[in-house]
Amino acid sequence: MAYHLLQRDPGGAGRLASALDHALKTLRRCARCNTFTEDVVCDRCLSPRRDSSLLCVVEMPVDLNTMEQTHAFNGLYYVLMGRLSPLDGIGPRELAFDRLLARANDGAVREVVLATNFTNEGEATAHYLAEMLRARGLKVSRIARGLPVGGELEYSDAATVAQAFIERRDY
Amino acid sequence: MAYHLLQRDPGGAGRLASALDHALKTLRRCARCNTFTEDVVCDRCLSPRRDSSLLCVVEMPVDLNTMEQTHAFNGLYYVLMGRLSPLDGIGPRELAFDRLLARANDGAVREVVLATNFTNEGEATAHYLAEMLRARGLKVSRIARGLPVGGELEYSDAATVAQAFIERRDY
Repeated sequence: MAYHLLQRDPGGAGRLASALDHALKTLRRCARCNTFTEDVVCDRCLSPRRDSSLLCVVEMPVDLNTMEQTHAFNGLYYVLMGRLSPLDGIGPRELAFDRLLARANDGAVREVVLATNFTNEGEATAHYLAEMLRARGLKVSRIARGLPVGGELEYSDAATVAQAFIERRDY
Repeated sequence: MAYHLLQRDPGGAGRLASALDHALKTLRRCARCNTFTEDVVCDRCLSPRRDSSLLCVVEMPVDLNTMEQTHAFNGLYYVLMGRLSPLDGIGPRELAFDRLLARANDGAVREVVLATNFTNEGEATAHYLAEMLRARGLKVSRIARGLPVGGELEYSDAATVAQAFIERRDY
């Protein structure tokens, strides 16, 4: 991309540079959900049409976008901007879990939906957060593991099929 | 494969032909679980170490193998040898649902786990079977849908993430 811009599109390179510069200068973290915004509190957190009793915790802003694209969730978010990763020196303090705790204890939140990834770090993060939030008397749930929509047993890995069986639900 | 056998491995072609011929002559359907076996009732159905209170319904013998590879399930199976597919003329009669009903009503079965695929036909089959089995007072469950083990929101399709949210579970 860098070679293309420098060789074929110097005008575009200039526009990209100033756009990045503008973003760096104007973007901050939303005081409520911690995602990128140009305001103190982002539009989503201020929207009266969102269900403030549901708080969905995701790792990154891109995960928030994915959840939004499903059109299945109408609550609010909290973006961790990472996940627990002791090997990289990222613990509860680096992710400011106390900010999430304060957010979840605002009185309006009834359920915290943990939507961190199903990687080792994402699972460890969900486990840690669940313990922490439940100790404060909050209802905590976790997005489901199992076969993907359209999935077939024959083409699924054994770990996923095992999980789908273990987490089977009443019909 | 046919060209390879005919050109490079005529001996192998002969062995394959006689193996197929042998399988055609000796294989039948297990009287209990409907999968392929050389006996009247297959070894798995006769095993005293399997939990006869759990009955897992799968579409094909290959799905049974997938479930076995997970080492997570120790109950018994029923193989439909297909799925409902009205466009192909396959209905409840063609799949002999009455045989499954009789099997599930043997008195030992406490829960029927529907493990048909999450394709349209597999879902329709699960829905039909659930109605039928519940009408007989049986407990019916369905393997879980959601994100696969190791899955990340960013790389999952919107339908799967939506389902994972809808089917979230208490932590």
